[in-house]
Amino acid sequence: MNLNMLTTTGRPVHRVWRVGADIDTDALAPGHAMKHGVDVIAKHCLEAIRPEFAAQVRPGDVIVAGPNFGIGSSREQAAAVLVQLGVAAVIAPSYSGLYFRNAFNVGLLLLTCAEAETLEEGESITLDTRTPALHTAGARALACEPVPDFLMEMVDAGGLLRLLRQRMAARKEVDAH
Amino acid sequence: MNLNMLTTTGRPVHRVWRVGADIDTDALAPGHAMKHGVDVIAKHCLEAIRPEFAAQVRPGDVIVAGPNFGIGSSREQAAAVLVQLGVAAVIAPSYSGLYFRNAFNVGLLLLTCAEAETLEEGESITLDTRTPALHTAGARALACEPVPDFLMEMVDAGGLLRLLRQRMAARKEVDAH
Repeated sequence: MNLNMLTTTGRPVHRVWRVGADIDTDALAPGHAMKHGVDVIAKHCLEAIRPEFAAQVRPGDVIVAGPNFGIGSSREQAAAVLVQLGVAAVIAPSYSGLYFRNAFNVGLLLLTCAEAETLEEGESITLDTRTPALHTAGARALACEPVPDFLMEMVDAGGLLRLLRQRMAARKEVDAH
Repeated sequence: MNLNMLTTTGRPVHRVWRVGADIDTDALAPGHAMKHGVDVIAKHCLEAIRPEFAAQVRPGDVIVAGPNFGIGSSREQAAAVLVQLGVAAVIAPSYSGLYFRNAFNVGLLLLTCAEAETLEEGESITLDTRTPALHTAGARALACEPVPDFLMEMVDAGGLLRLLRQRMAARKEVDAH
């Protein structure tokens, strides 16, 4: 693996966790844990599929999945747990519409990538969120669907509520002068 | 067709327009018309696939599509044109995540229905948006994925901005007393 090629771009390197198709919100935020806060629910994230995930995932890692990621209930915690665990992005060919909505609202980046499933467990990649595309250590570039600026702003701010708070604070500062 | 069975529920009857899979935003809001307002863009909606659509669609009609409805660009007009034309809902097995987000923001109801493609062109159906499910004249019930209350509120209000304006007005009224 040519990690040099990745790191010379100056972009952080992300480790891939591979999961399958149709990962539902109950796998991400199990029903039995839903009475707790996101910090506790996060400890059970993906336990039915990848029991080691919650303990071993590191900030900056990415989840690479098959189609229809996030189907099931509307529970926002299914996206918030991945933010809590420091997951940098989910990369999949398609998402539940509702999960796509919730994810950006809580600051989780979702990349829609037709070739996502060609990535392998443990592989190292970099993300170019502006193009957007992702790059493998083997110098493959996988195109992703564009993410509009307003959604990237939500991700950068850490979610919609934080973005609105930032804007209101900036507005107050302007008004005060 | 037993229209009685449909109308005795008291719910409006919707006429089906069938389109295929992967309907993109350029088919819904063609690039050449994007310099105009939504009222003009709407006249070109689906012209490449169903040239008669924009002229013949009636308020309350529904679009029934294959998977990945709304892929392509982030242009919000691709959802707004269907509201402009009075389309009551889109019914499809899956949507582009971005389209799903934009649609509810502009007040367009999207129903996610695994069996959508079993519906036929010109068929009459009723929608039960609470269950949610849709019912055919032949008494078939097709289940749809739940639509959370906050999204139904956006649809009922005619979009996110109108919902926020309603809430602010209600708040002011409370404050004034």
